[in-house]
Amino acid sequence: MPKKEKSKLRVIPLGGLNEIGKNLTVLEYADDIIIVDCGLGFPDEDMLGIDLVIPDISYLEANRDKIRGIVLTHGHEDHIGAIPYCLRQINPPIYGTKLTLGIIQNKLQEHVLPVTPSLNCVRAGDTVRLGSFSVEFIHVNHSIADACCLAINTPVGTVVHSGDFKLDITPIDGEMMNLTRLGEIGKKGVLLLMCESTNAERPGYTPSEKKVGKSLEYIFTTNTQKRIVIATFSSNVHRVQQIINVSARHGRKVAITGRSMLNIIGAAVELGYMTLPEGVLIDINEIKRFKPEEITLITTGSQGEPMSALYRMAFGDHSQITLGTNDLVVLSSSAIPGNEKLVGRIINELSKNGVSVLHDALVEVHVSGHACQEELKLLQALIKPRYFMPVHGEYRHLEANRQLALELGMEDRNIFISDIGKVLEVDRKSAKFAGTVPAGKVLVDGYGVGDVGNIVLRDRRHLAQDGLIVVVATVDTDARLLLSEPDVVSRGFVYVRESEELMDEIRQLATQAISDCLERCKNVDRMELKTCVKDALSKYLYAKTKRKPMVLPVITNI
Amino acid sequence: MPKKEKSKLRVIPLGGLNEIGKNLTVLEYADDIIIVDCGLGFPDEDMLGIDLVIPDISYLEANRDKIRGIVLTHGHEDHIGAIPYCLRQINPPIYGTKLTLGIIQNKLQEHVLPVTPSLNCVRAGDTVRLGSFSVEFIHVNHSIADACCLAINTPVGTVVHSGDFKLDITPIDGEMMNLTRLGEIGKKGVLLLMCESTNAERPGYTPSEKKVGKSLEYIFTTNTQKRIVIATFSSNVHRVQQIINVSARHGRKVAITGRSMLNIIGAAVELGYMTLPEGVLIDINEIKRFKPEEITLITTGSQGEPMSALYRMAFGDHSQITLGTNDLVVLSSSAIPGNEKLVGRIINELSKNGVSVLHDALVEVHVSGHACQEELKLLQALIKPRYFMPVHGEYRHLEANRQLALELGMEDRNIFISDIGKVLEVDRKSAKFAGTVPAGKVLVDGYGVGDVGNIVLRDRRHLAQDGLIVVVATVDTDARLLLSEPDVVSRGFVYVRESEELMDEIRQLATQAISDCLERCKNVDRMELKTCVKDALSKYLYAKTKRKPMVLPVITNI
Repeated sequence: MPKKEKSKLRVIPLGGLNEIGKNLTVLEYADDIIIVDCGLGFPDEDMLGIDLVIPDISYLEANRDKIRGIVLTHGHEDHIGAIPYCLRQINPPIYGTKLTLGIIQNKLQEHVLPVTPSLNCVRAGDTVRLGSFSVEFIHVNHSIADACCLAINTPVGTVVHSGDFKLDITPIDGEMMNLTRLGEIGKKGVLLLMCESTNAERPGYTPSEKKVGKSLEYIFTTNTQKRIVIATFSSNVHRVQQIINVSARHGRKVAITGRSMLNIIGAAVELGYMTLPEGVLIDINEIKRFKPEEITLITTGSQGEPMSALYRMAFGDHSQITLGTNDLVVLSSSAIPGNEKLVGRIINELSKNGVSVLHDALVEVHVSGHACQEELKLLQALIKPRYFMPVHGEYRHLEANRQLALELGMEDRNIFISDIGKVLEVDRKSAKFAGTVPAGKVLVDGYGVGDVGNIVLRDRRHLAQDGLIVVVATVDTDARLLLSEPDVVSRGFVYVRESEELMDEIRQLATQAISDCLERCKNVDRMELKTCVKDALSKYLYAKTKRKPMVLPVITNI
Repeated sequence: MPKKEKSKLRVIPLGGLNEIGKNLTVLEYADDIIIVDCGLGFPDEDMLGIDLVIPDISYLEANRDKIRGIVLTHGHEDHIGAIPYCLRQINPPIYGTKLTLGIIQNKLQEHVLPVTPSLNCVRAGDTVRLGSFSVEFIHVNHSIADACCLAINTPVGTVVHSGDFKLDITPIDGEMMNLTRLGEIGKKGVLLLMCESTNAERPGYTPSEKKVGKSLEYIFTTNTQKRIVIATFSSNVHRVQQIINVSARHGRKVAITGRSMLNIIGAAVELGYMTLPEGVLIDINEIKRFKPEEITLITTGSQGEPMSALYRMAFGDHSQITLGTNDLVVLSSSAIPGNEKLVGRIINELSKNGVSVLHDALVEVHVSGHACQEELKLLQALIKPRYFMPVHGEYRHLEANRQLALELGMEDRNIFISDIGKVLEVDRKSAKFAGTVPAGKVLVDGYGVGDVGNIVLRDRRHLAQDGLIVVVATVDTDARLLLSEPDVVSRGFVYVRESEELMDEIRQLATQAISDCLERCKNVDRMELKTCVKDALSKYLYAKTKRKPMVLPVITNI
């Protein structure tokens, strides 16, 4: 196979580097491409009105015929959330564990797709052959069940992709991360390790999920007189299992509220990822049959999401539950950066209603799902890769992960901090960056995918800051006449009813600007008139109000 | 004085409760009013385009003649920042310590005021008589020098207001908080304690400012080959002093960048709050004369503010400084809630440029200026007030402070969680809530104070989410005719150049809606036509795009 010997492996992240979420990595060798994960990201605060962000996959569209499959590490949104959108462009077979595929199937029901996706279930330990690649799924611990890292055999050597992981020596269900298998693979020699960087700035080890169980036990023991309401991430099946177990031990019934919580628990039970003690789970409509202190309520809304069940309960807007002084709310979560204020709003509102609130700053009711520095070093030490590429994180996290590799004695020239669209070419003896492919963010707004770009966002930011003024005028450019006083409409600028004087001034100024322009120039066109109005109003309003509303002249010529 | 004996003390917070910042408390007794602090707040994320928020002081305007003075606890924005705005409505004498007034004078230079303010300098230990009140200023520690709490003598008893404070047993300059005096006052009997709640959720004690000095010493000792750039809050005079001292000890020259840093250091040196070792301070233009490792640079921008000196340095936009692999940047600060992402952006950009970055998650380079639980309890234990009102904080913080009082054995009925505008009436034997006065947020946007309210903000949020569509049409309602095809202009909705088809549809739909309406109804007015266009377009666009742009019809009738 002369062609293969000459080829190099191309490693191309299309998302997940220099950003949080939207994880997607392309591995390309000669005529074969495989895709690791296909996640979505959440909009930055300056992406006004955007619902979510997906990777630009135009490189994959252009190389559609090469794609042998998508392999998934686990079922979180930032690893699978872009699948419904990407399936409109490409439709390769998808490989993932049972829970991962279960969650995808749930998601796909909300989308109308032109194709039937091919979902292929694997288990940890399985190997899938995809063109010249073969991919082994290896069990890791994470904040969702059924998570894997990947050992990818390529013609030039083995690549290990960590996915998201932590080392939990005392996991809730199943086993510890498969360090033995990773050690065996490391012993045989690994060409490249791609390792997640989420917690690379944090020293030490991430505590075991069991730690949360202990805190819950303490909370249930010391709050025997209250109804206990616990909000957590719906996908954290093990956390939910612990809440159910501790409730059963304390003789409480468990009710569930929140659509995604009901969905995921349903799927997890059906697929065998959760075991329900006999008679513990009750319907939320049944809770009136029990005393408050006999009830645990598990709910969504741990990020303060304004439509979530917890938010509605806090603001007295939940049809079945009213919270008060007899309730203890536990936020078994930590606020994702950017959500602190939303979470704070819920805590304040609950406190106002006399509800007791516990959160992770007060009690250890949450642990991270990501490896801290010692775990990251442990993985590197087991894998002993020739080359190292930190993935999943902003630059600061990638850099911190690089520092860990340096601490372990890796040479700086063997560590590659990449970026989305950047191609790393690797063979048995060398690795180097070799150009770029198209990559970026595709914005999803309502049904629109990619129809909102920088210009639209710039306008939204402008409108958000200072609002707008529309000036409508009818002119006769031949006669060089303004036919009537312009109409002025304003939104988001000043409260018009209390600013009549200012609105009058604007109307006069617009009249003046148009008349002057018609008088000054022969054959004036609409564009020129618009510019005159815009300039005159913008200048005046900035001097007067220090604001810069968008000025939108609409000139009709008859 | 029969009138006075019958009167009650009225305690009315006009800001600072159920919110962060904008601190202002009114104390009223018979014909006398004093005001404690006059601060500003920063806009919530849904107050689009707003620069800052000040308290609604219409109650003070209505009682202008009663006001005997404004007493200030310290010079932070959230305690003095509304003064330039309030001076347009009221102009009582202002009392504060030297540094506090120095900062105000600096601020007032940026405002054109109709009055000359009366600024009266006091020292800790001084007592000021204001009508039937007398106010004693008592030294406390805080993250700004010259901070005081207040013991306010009133005809019905003594009120203590903590201001912002911490207990620093080893302060950088001057003395520990005057616990002795507070104990004496407590011994004589205190009617009401108003105590800040910022850190009421945090157990233990806040570390001494000296702790930061130790971290700096360690950083300077282990980074002898690098230029060191330190960003911190400009008003933290003691922090800046420590940075200067450690630099001098390590033989470094210190240069300053950032307007507010230059201003405050200038004022602090002039007023005697800072001592500069001979020859240490140099102009930023002189730094080229020294090796990088002989330089410390102190800068603004520790909150990631986009126009700050540090931001400009990070993004290669600073006229005098370029940062690179020879630089260590220390963020001697913590991100104020809501600023985490801005700070993160700077850390990422610096890391990309090879700059080493240390921040408070990695080294203890910042300590809080606010008392934690043990200090809050210490103050309560010294003061032993009959009544207790937690102030300065969101509800969760006020509630946590209430819990501390309960722990100390105070009865629940003697603790009052108030709100802005809520009146607490107190006499020697009783305290109870008694109605409300007007209170709220006044929004400052550019030169406009209060001209942006809920309607304008609602429009800005709408525009920010989905943009707008302007439909301009000329009709003859008498002839029941649409005179030409409507003009459609859109901003912030879709990228128009790639959505010509959609824009055509909108035009046709608008034409149809207007024609139908003219045909259907006799004597149709413009309002009806507008509603027809709005309804038709909104409905169609939501079904087609799942977005709700603002539809703004402008109908001209001739």
